[in-house]
Amino acid sequence: MRVQFEDMVRQFEKVLLSRGMDSPSAKLSATMIAETSLEGVYTHGANRFYFYVKNIDDGLVDVDARATPVGRFGALERWDAKMGPGNLNASICMRRAIKLAKENTIGCVALANNSHWMRPGTYGLMAAQETCIGILWTNTLPLMPAWGGKDAKVGNNPLVLAIPSNDGPVLVDAAMSQFSYGKMETYKREGRALPFDGGFDSEGKASRDAGAIMESKRPMPMGFWKGTSLALALDLIAAALSGGRTTHSIGTDVESEVSQVFIAISLANLPDRAAIEEKITASLADLKASDAIDPNNPVRFPGERRKSLREENMREGIPVDEKIWEKICSL
Amino acid sequence: MRVQFEDMVRQFEKVLLSRGMDSPSAKLSATMIAETSLEGVYTHGANRFYFYVKNIDDGLVDVDARATPVGRFGALERWDAKMGPGNLNASICMRRAIKLAKENTIGCVALANNSHWMRPGTYGLMAAQETCIGILWTNTLPLMPAWGGKDAKVGNNPLVLAIPSNDGPVLVDAAMSQFSYGKMETYKREGRALPFDGGFDSEGKASRDAGAIMESKRPMPMGFWKGTSLALALDLIAAALSGGRTTHSIGTDVESEVSQVFIAISLANLPDRAAIEEKITASLADLKASDAIDPNNPVRFPGERRKSLREENMREGIPVDEKIWEKICSL
Repeated sequence: MRVQFEDMVRQFEKVLLSRGMDSPSAKLSATMIAETSLEGVYTHGANRFYFYVKNIDDGLVDVDARATPVGRFGALERWDAKMGPGNLNASICMRRAIKLAKENTIGCVALANNSHWMRPGTYGLMAAQETCIGILWTNTLPLMPAWGGKDAKVGNNPLVLAIPSNDGPVLVDAAMSQFSYGKMETYKREGRALPFDGGFDSEGKASRDAGAIMESKRPMPMGFWKGTSLALALDLIAAALSGGRTTHSIGTDVESEVSQVFIAISLANLPDRAAIEEKITASLADLKASDAIDPNNPVRFPGERRKSLREENMREGIPVDEKIWEKICSL
Repeated sequence: MRVQFEDMVRQFEKVLLSRGMDSPSAKLSATMIAETSLEGVYTHGANRFYFYVKNIDDGLVDVDARATPVGRFGALERWDAKMGPGNLNASICMRRAIKLAKENTIGCVALANNSHWMRPGTYGLMAAQETCIGILWTNTLPLMPAWGGKDAKVGNNPLVLAIPSNDGPVLVDAAMSQFSYGKMETYKREGRALPFDGGFDSEGKASRDAGAIMESKRPMPMGFWKGTSLALALDLIAAALSGGRTTHSIGTDVESEVSQVFIAISLANLPDRAAIEEKITASLADLKASDAIDPNNPVRFPGERRKSLREENMREGIPVDEKIWEKICSL
């Protein structure tokens, strides 16, 4: 089924207001989550809304708490999210990092004790909108084994790199596992095999069965040993800078009190913005001129399809799994 | 064969002096390159020295040129490397980024027009040595196709993340291809198959044959589509911040005038250094306590083997391919 964007926002808003969230926050949160689905990232939009609300109902997320500054250290600030709504806290901190970047060209906010921030790319797009490079990431609970190990020890710690461009932001939003749990849930729900080995089953065999991988808790890191190395480093940096928890200290029970880093770099502070835009445009054009393996499937830059998907879903309504929408309407 | 560390430094130094490099620079460059082999990264140490000197002989690298500042923008500076020796320029810029981090907690130097910087990890270790997080990367010439394309369009753009720890620095030094060209050269020379598909052969079939992949110029990105997305973003950021070249404008002829980014974040500027060290130590201990797939091959953190390899090679001499050492001695 398809749901109109405005209807989706309204439904999310209604549920959040019913959980005691103040009206401007409910509107902002609902809009961010609906926009995620609008732009085709269904796994982190409507599909995840139920868990967002469940965390509030379970007392894991405090609808009234918001991130506040803890200390300023030059161009870096530490903030405490106090387990308020993760997406609201993240947008507060990204906004602050952009402000610091406008003052110092590069600015960083390190955030402790946040709840799940929903779609990571949301905050990268905020940076690009303000003519900033965005570099941001979160840690998570232990979701995958270290390379060579069997038991989940590292997070999948999504990393976002965002770059403003004349063709719309270049947006890389990548978990350090080959497939995020959100993606695997989708494949499992739809009964489809993953396009590549996405992990190991309980017997330790490489597998494309999302359900078996989720059960064994052994997803494949992106690039084998490289993915878990990068994930570990991102985790340690986030915890060190924010003063918050590492993946290890978050533990395996519930994903709460994660650590996040928001770095913004203001291109408007540099003297040659026009030349920068020109060279980015030329690079993207060159990439798109790739000799495609499948001529019907031209090479695209990351983030390129966002605009057309957005337009299509705005026009036709946003595709949602019927059972998921029913569940949302019953909240 | 094995060569003593001091002999290797002396030989490198002699060659560099013969190419007109000033004495302190020759000593520093020789030491950095020999240390790379000493720490077991043979691909980017002795194995690459011949190319370092060849670039000088071919007039691509100016032994007398050194990076100089172009402009300061808050906590970010732009430098111009003027195609001086890449490793000397990179160490100058990393040192400067560390200085900026001590002043502003986070500091960034963006460097244009550098030649090959040899081992990326060298500069991450410099940051860790100064109690800084190091986040740094370079772009390269087009070395691999975008995901879904056949012709080389993106660099493999190695990324380094370094974190000081009580157990020695955590050091991630990862090219965005699954295997670096240096690694593939080693497998090819030794006639061994890659442990995983490392690219596509000229017929477009996934392959473990390093020689065939180097010929087709179709190495596999780390994590498939994720690797080329990350590589593209790192390239655009480096060129935008430095005012230098993108992978596209470097072109395919010779790798020269690359763009690099050095970000340092000073942990000593934060109020809770002891707590930070403690949580890093606890995370690494937890990782190492992984239930290993092969009990004889315990899980290690990235960078862990550096110290023992260094000690072993200092004691026993550094392993070098005989033909490579002969070539170096004939320079």
